[in-house]
Amino acid sequence: MNIFIIGIGLIGGSFAKDLKRLRPESKIYGIDIDPSHEEEALSLGLIDARSSYDELDIADMVIVTVPVDAMVQELPKVLDAVNDDCVVLDGGSTKSLVCKTLADHPKRRNYLSAHPIAGTEFSGPSAAIENLYAGKTNIICEIERTAFKLQGKALEIFQEMGMRIRYMNPEAHDKHIAYVSHLSHISSFMLGKTVIDKEKNERDIFDMAGSGFESTVRLAKSSPAMWTPIFKHNRDNVLDTLNEYIQNLQEFKQLLEDEDYEGIFHEMNDTNRIKEILKGIPLNSMGK
Amino acid sequence: MNIFIIGIGLIGGSFAKDLKRLRPESKIYGIDIDPSHEEEALSLGLIDARSSYDELDIADMVIVTVPVDAMVQELPKVLDAVNDDCVVLDGGSTKSLVCKTLADHPKRRNYLSAHPIAGTEFSGPSAAIENLYAGKTNIICEIERTAFKLQGKALEIFQEMGMRIRYMNPEAHDKHIAYVSHLSHISSFMLGKTVIDKEKNERDIFDMAGSGFESTVRLAKSSPAMWTPIFKHNRDNVLDTLNEYIQNLQEFKQLLEDEDYEGIFHEMNDTNRIKEILKGIPLNSMGK
Repeated sequence: MNIFIIGIGLIGGSFAKDLKRLRPESKIYGIDIDPSHEEEALSLGLIDARSSYDELDIADMVIVTVPVDAMVQELPKVLDAVNDDCVVLDGGSTKSLVCKTLADHPKRRNYLSAHPIAGTEFSGPSAAIENLYAGKTNIICEIERTAFKLQGKALEIFQEMGMRIRYMNPEAHDKHIAYVSHLSHISSFMLGKTVIDKEKNERDIFDMAGSGFESTVRLAKSSPAMWTPIFKHNRDNVLDTLNEYIQNLQEFKQLLEDEDYEGIFHEMNDTNRIKEILKGIPLNSMGK
Repeated sequence: MNIFIIGIGLIGGSFAKDLKRLRPESKIYGIDIDPSHEEEALSLGLIDARSSYDELDIADMVIVTVPVDAMVQELPKVLDAVNDDCVVLDGGSTKSLVCKTLADHPKRRNYLSAHPIAGTEFSGPSAAIENLYAGKTNIICEIERTAFKLQGKALEIFQEMGMRIRYMNPEAHDKHIAYVSHLSHISSFMLGKTVIDKEKNERDIFDMAGSGFESTVRLAKSSPAMWTPIFKHNRDNVLDTLNEYIQNLQEFKQLLEDEDYEGIFHEMNDTNRIKEILKGIPLNSMGK
């Protein structure tokens, strides 16, 4: 099988590692806008060869893992270039705009819209991790629009990688993922900003920080090149989550201003339910 | 050595575990407002005996690890009860009000004001962890007000436990800890609340949550009984951090409303510096 990976960073590179194990007879081709990423992926053994769109006609599977703004540019060109038996997957964190962009593409049936909920705050080929996807949820959108046999080809691999498959429409995906993923990134980035701004002249203050701060601010290490387009694609939903989050913070602040400590206790006590909820999340999902 | 631990939860219990290893000849007495915690601590082997304030006169060391509102009530009574050669430590997360409360106590020289920056989101005797404090920072306030030989007794043990000692005044401690610890807890609790409120009728939505959400919301599992008094003690500093955090979130929201994606990129890119800053934080500080 000829597998092409377009965008060989954390997500694409981790696909490559699993595919090399699961399909040892395959040849994996890498394409990246950054030639140094192709070189690095080659030297790390993630890919067998560098390639280009000119060779896409020999692909049996193409995995496109680029930032979502590049996704809407590249996926139509990729579909134009592949043969009728090739399945083209993406791994983007927003789905509505991509699905809309491809809705009338003559090769829409070759495309399978996926979002594996996995990753770390690191990026680039060296961030790739074997078994990143084991036990993780993979949201698939508009499955009915992908050709039967190509559905089968992709699902078989997802299953061998150990993913839990869930089906949703792109609009529901984008709305809910804004809450359980995109908002966390903003809360974390702004926490980091608030503390750095305050303590910029007293760097040794970070000696006082413990695991709680580290955990809460972890996502502020994430790649701006990946996240800016996500916020752009999912702007309306993200604005909703931000309004609600700011409102909740203002209410908490008001309780503290009013010295309503019973109210503060109840706010926290009610939210402690997150313990039970989080039990359902596979905790091995942190890369390290 | 007779060691008394008042409040045998995560923090006190973890002290007990290390002390049992480091001072095997010692007898460890436990006192807790909750008799079931004393029973549990005894059955877990954290303590050798249950005790009461009536026995405090035989103590060589007393470690008080109760919520900070109880701390200002209990520490004067503990100091009243101990002998002149006993050192009384606390492990509270706020220091100004405690130090002020004890400023004129006739046995002020027996007290050493400490804040070991360590813990997990869990609580109670069963949450105690051996070596919780190894490699962690321990902030000590007003060291000059503790008697020389009692400073030595406490510092020797902190050193054997592997702590890094830093000295600060209580006001600076409370101001900076509001940024690097207290604000993280509020941002996490309110993130949890925002998502739970939105998704309360669609619990399987949490299937979509990944490690990013889990990490950012982890502190929302923390004990309200411990955290409400911390916010009360440190109200003014916490309000400052909240105002700045809300301001930063509102500015981010404005950028998104204005579709200023270059601005959003720069906000995140500037905050990526947290990567370098966090390298200084001992990452083994997550209990599990």
